[in-house]
Amino acid sequence: MAKNFEIKIRVYYEDTDAGGIVYYANYLKYLERARTELIYSLGLKHKKLIEEYGFQIIVAHCDIAFKKPAYFEDHLVIKTELKSLSAVKLEMVQKVYKVDCWTTTTEEELLVDAKVTLACVNPQGKPKKMPSAASLLFKSCL
Amino acid sequence: MAKNFEIKIRVYYEDTDAGGIVYYANYLKYLERARTELIYSLGLKHKKLIEEYGFQIIVAHCDIAFKKPAYFEDHLVIKTELKSLSAVKLEMVQKVYKVDCWTTTTEEELLVDAKVTLACVNPQGKPKKMPSAASLLFKSCL
Amino acid sequence: MAKNFEIKIRVYYEDTDAGGIVYYANYLKYLERARTELIYSLGLKHKKLIEEYGFQIIVAHCDIAFKKPAYFEDHLVIKTELKSLSAVKLEMVQKVYKVDCWTTTTEEELLVDAKVTLACVNPQGKPKKMPSAASLLFKSCL
Amino acid sequence: MAKNFEIKIRVYYEDTDAGGIVYYANYLKYLERARTELIYSLGLKHKKLIEEYGFQIIVAHCDIAFKKPAYFEDHLVIKTELKSLSAVKLEMVQKVYKVDCWTTTTEEELLVDAKVTLACVNPQGKPKKMPSAASLLFKSCL
Repeated sequence: MAKNFEIKIRVYYEDTDAGGIVYYANYLKYLERARTELIYSLGLKHKKLIEEYGFQIIVAHCDIAFKKPAYFEDHLVIKTELKSLSAVKLEMVQKVYKVDCWTTTTEEELLVDAKVTLACVNPQGKPKKMPSAASLLFKSCL
Repeated sequence: MAKNFEIKIRVYYEDTDAGGIVYYANYLKYLERARTELIYSLGLKHKKLIEEYGFQIIVAHCDIAFKKPAYFEDHLVIKTELKSLSAVKLEMVQKVYKVDCWTTTTEEELLVDAKVTLACVNPQGKPKKMPSAASLLFKSCL
Repeated sequence: MAKNFEIKIRVYYEDTDAGGIVYYANYLKYLERARTELIYSLGLKHKKLIEEYGFQIIVAHCDIAFKKPAYFEDHLVIKTELKSLSAVKLEMVQKVYKVDCWTTTTEEELLVDAKVTLACVNPQGKPKKMPSAASLLFKSCL
Repeated sequence: MAKNFEIKIRVYYEDTDAGGIVYYANYLKYLERARTELIYSLGLKHKKLIEEYGFQIIVAHCDIAFKKPAYFEDHLVIKTELKSLSAVKLEMVQKVYKVDCWTTTTEEELLVDAKVTLACVNPQGKPKKMPSAASLLFKSCL
């Protein structure tokens, strides 16, 4: 997998607020979509991890800087990079960029910059080591 | 219980969209809050209904007219009236009014008018008769 | 444009509720995304309609039946069909189907069935005739 | 005003996800409600600040730790403390506690701990000094 996993998001009405811009909490939805698509790109699924391994990945900490606003109908690219990996923790950097359109040569403007710490837990929320199959897949992203 | 069960909602940023008004899907959140508070006012709790009776109430149908917009910081009153009740179905009329403030003598302006059909189901989503204790409580609203 | 305009949606965590299924209000977000993508497919943009023509399309009425639940990670297809068109009103039927995956030969299961009435208004929310350029484009969908 | 401004929130269905807990992005909605109610408690309104002073307060940075989950129907208390104030910036600490019920003597369990940096901007998003009337009111919270 590319070190910088990318997804594209177009801003819909549901994402905006009365300020005409993307509501700040909704960036956390975008970041979760990006992490979920990264997991799918590795051939994993949340449901399978829970049902087969009794294992899930939750957000333990998020440090997020809102640098510039995104507007209705904007084209956004979310870039996700896995920075570190242990048996019970993953650290990612996730950035939201605005682009003119979805070609590869477009200028990018950084809107949001986040450090996200994920914890590996069992269904009761207690720390649980990542299954080795999943661990190997995540290592391929480092 | 009063035939017209009321809750008050102040419009927050999270509820609005780039049009400066409450996003249309968010009225369904308001309606659900009102139904939940009605259930609490009867001394019931969702969790208890599910865990003790294996019973839950889901929305089967919603016919909703968006007549006028609500704006950021508006004061809203949601009125809920139970219209009919059978062993496996409840029909409610729910209306969203805008008021100047939260005194009882204020003028009311109708913004949203909804007919909501609720179905009684088991955890697998199959029709299930309402427990008689709950049924009696709901009858007191008719 | 095809009479049945389609978009694909994968169910994310943000869409679900404690019942393990898509929260009922979130289907209205899906329906709006579908209508917005239909508008894009015609070469129109909301922002341009507002800024150049002082014209916007709002939801006046929605009659929606929730037939079966969608679950986390489900693959959904939203089909949108324009049923009628006047100078100040559009009527659409929108349906949410669950599919096994996103190939064309998959079985479809109807989850949600909605009739949506859209009104053409000016920025103050008063009825306003659709610009003829937009009207012609929408007619091509009938 | 008390140094620790409090609001109460009950967890509704709309707030939860398929994990049965409050979806992580929704805590940012709770935090915003708390800040808005703090502003109301000072006698200020967002709309007035924007319309009269061309001034608004946006979130520039959020450092948030998700320590324990909140569940459907939980009673939460959000505590907000203004930590520092300059002409163009406010720093707040906001904490989400779970309580058994809404009496004052209940045990509190810390669920979420956030440091939020707010920026004072004009409608174009450029830094703008806080109107002195608002500044004086905020100083009363320090």
